[in-house]
Amino acid sequence: MAVAVEVGELVGRAREGQHRAIARLISLVEDAHPQLREVAEALTPYTGHARIVGLTGPPGVGKSTSTSMLLSALREEGKRVGVLAIDPSSPFSGGALLGDRIRMTEHATDSGIFIRSMATRGHLGGLAWATPQAVRVLDAAGFDVVLIETVGVGQSEVDVVRLADTTVVLLAPGMGDGIQAAKAGVLEIADVFVVNKADRDGAETTVRDLKQMIAMVRREVRGHSWRQPIVRTVAAKNEGAAEVLSALDEHHEWLQARGELLRRRTARAAGEVEAIALQRLRDQLADLRGGDRLPELARQVVERELDPYSAAEKLIGDLTR
Amino acid sequence: MAVAVEVGELVGRAREGQHRAIARLISLVEDAHPQLREVAEALTPYTGHARIVGLTGPPGVGKSTSTSMLLSALREEGKRVGVLAIDPSSPFSGGALLGDRIRMTEHATDSGIFIRSMATRGHLGGLAWATPQAVRVLDAAGFDVVLIETVGVGQSEVDVVRLADTTVVLLAPGMGDGIQAAKAGVLEIADVFVVNKADRDGAETTVRDLKQMIAMVRREVRGHSWRQPIVRTVAAKNEGAAEVLSALDEHHEWLQARGELLRRRTARAAGEVEAIALQRLRDQLADLRGGDRLPELARQVVERELDPYSAAEKLIGDLTR
Repeated sequence: MAVAVEVGELVGRAREGQHRAIARLISLVEDAHPQLREVAEALTPYTGHARIVGLTGPPGVGKSTSTSMLLSALREEGKRVGVLAIDPSSPFSGGALLGDRIRMTEHATDSGIFIRSMATRGHLGGLAWATPQAVRVLDAAGFDVVLIETVGVGQSEVDVVRLADTTVVLLAPGMGDGIQAAKAGVLEIADVFVVNKADRDGAETTVRDLKQMIAMVRREVRGHSWRQPIVRTVAAKNEGAAEVLSALDEHHEWLQARGELLRRRTARAAGEVEAIALQRLRDQLADLRGGDRLPELARQVVERELDPYSAAEKLIGDLTR
Repeated sequence: MAVAVEVGELVGRAREGQHRAIARLISLVEDAHPQLREVAEALTPYTGHARIVGLTGPPGVGKSTSTSMLLSALREEGKRVGVLAIDPSSPFSGGALLGDRIRMTEHATDSGIFIRSMATRGHLGGLAWATPQAVRVLDAAGFDVVLIETVGVGQSEVDVVRLADTTVVLLAPGMGDGIQAAKAGVLEIADVFVVNKADRDGAETTVRDLKQMIAMVRREVRGHSWRQPIVRTVAAKNEGAAEVLSALDEHHEWLQARGELLRRRTARAAGEVEAIALQRLRDQLADLRGGDRLPELARQVVERELDPYSAAEKLIGDLTR
């Protein structure tokens, strides 16, 4: 049994920065708590403030170290920062990401920081459904920046881009094939490139390769092209944070000046509304499984009184009555 | 543009055993042709005749050779047989299955046999949605037996069981870990076990291991347990086909005597109706993407006039008006 929650009080405490209240709200949305809608309503007036930044890149580029560096730099500017670390259900990357989490414990006692790992729960659509709601919680809780970190593997990468105002793609030298493999998708989704481990051999080659690729696929957005900057960092030595933040600021200003921020956020909201609608319809269908109607329609299909499409339409008719 | 199809004529030709008509009908259901429902209606009166047999097992046990052997044996009994080979989207198994297809070309010129590979089209639910419709086509076309062959990898295995009246699980000696790995799921889903390559060393060990596992997990179905038989075959030498067919017959009689056949087919129809309903709802949502309503709702969410759940409900309201 789900216990009734004092949603208003919880949102109030989350806005005061209480970690437990924020964590509770995210759990409510992750678990699709019956009061989900009440939670969403209570959060709505406080949303729209946070900048949503996505961080992605192939395994081994130093994503968590970079996230940690950016966290510290943003905190020094007095910003409150929420982090969502998306663990794709793939067994290849899940472990690495969780292992990296440990390095971020230095931030654990800071009330201006909130870090949460989210599993995609092994089903398609899980990320698309729960992550925007978690972003919404952090936004409403008053965080200035929400960082969404994910291992760059296929769909999760794309989902992060859909959520973020600005997407940072991390690369590192000496990954050879990595950059080639990433090439196709990465150029489309990156607003800012970060070449981490820039003190290593091959860093300049990586930067040069990247520049060539960018030159080939120059993006045009409403006639004004955004020149994707390439920032060099050595996150392990805390070098380059200021340059990354400045690139993020520039992109944010560009987004605002072009009306692109509103466009991206509207597209994000549309995806969110659609995912919620689909999940609700799915749940409603599942509810019918326990009733008499679906077995009765199935019987009629088996008895050849009805074709399965007509049966499906009758089922949909029941849903929506 | 989809071209209008003379559905009634097509079904008539399919029932005469014309391969092209059958293939065309399966393509129509796979591609979700606009006339899908008309096709389903035209097929319905002729369904319910075929026995649906699922064949699954780990890679390397000789599934295609076994399918080929059973095909020949059933043909000798004068049965018409349709084969659906499910290629899971996994790159590991897809190739092997397609390669094995070639060995079955000996049957290609027989009008009493129809063989079709089905890809799961890389999206979850694709198999659940299209395969039962393809089964329906073969059933209506008058095939006495429909064999659904799939590599035993996770979800596709389970989906096949949902479709089949009788599920055959193939194993082979010397797979060692294979049988252990398969153990958990395999005991639950198998109605008949076939130990292929029974002339090899270790065959008796495999049979003994299997017997022990069966003894541990004896299934009870409505108070009458079905004793899962273990049949030894050497498909490459065409040995054991008669024993497999006889096990299939016994299971079919058991299903009928217990009312279990009707129960399984009703459950299958229920899954089918639900999958169609979900796909229709998904399509209808996607249609709304092109209109004014979703962007307008998204704008209201961004402007904090509406929470995303209320917006989703309004969207669902539009669907069902």
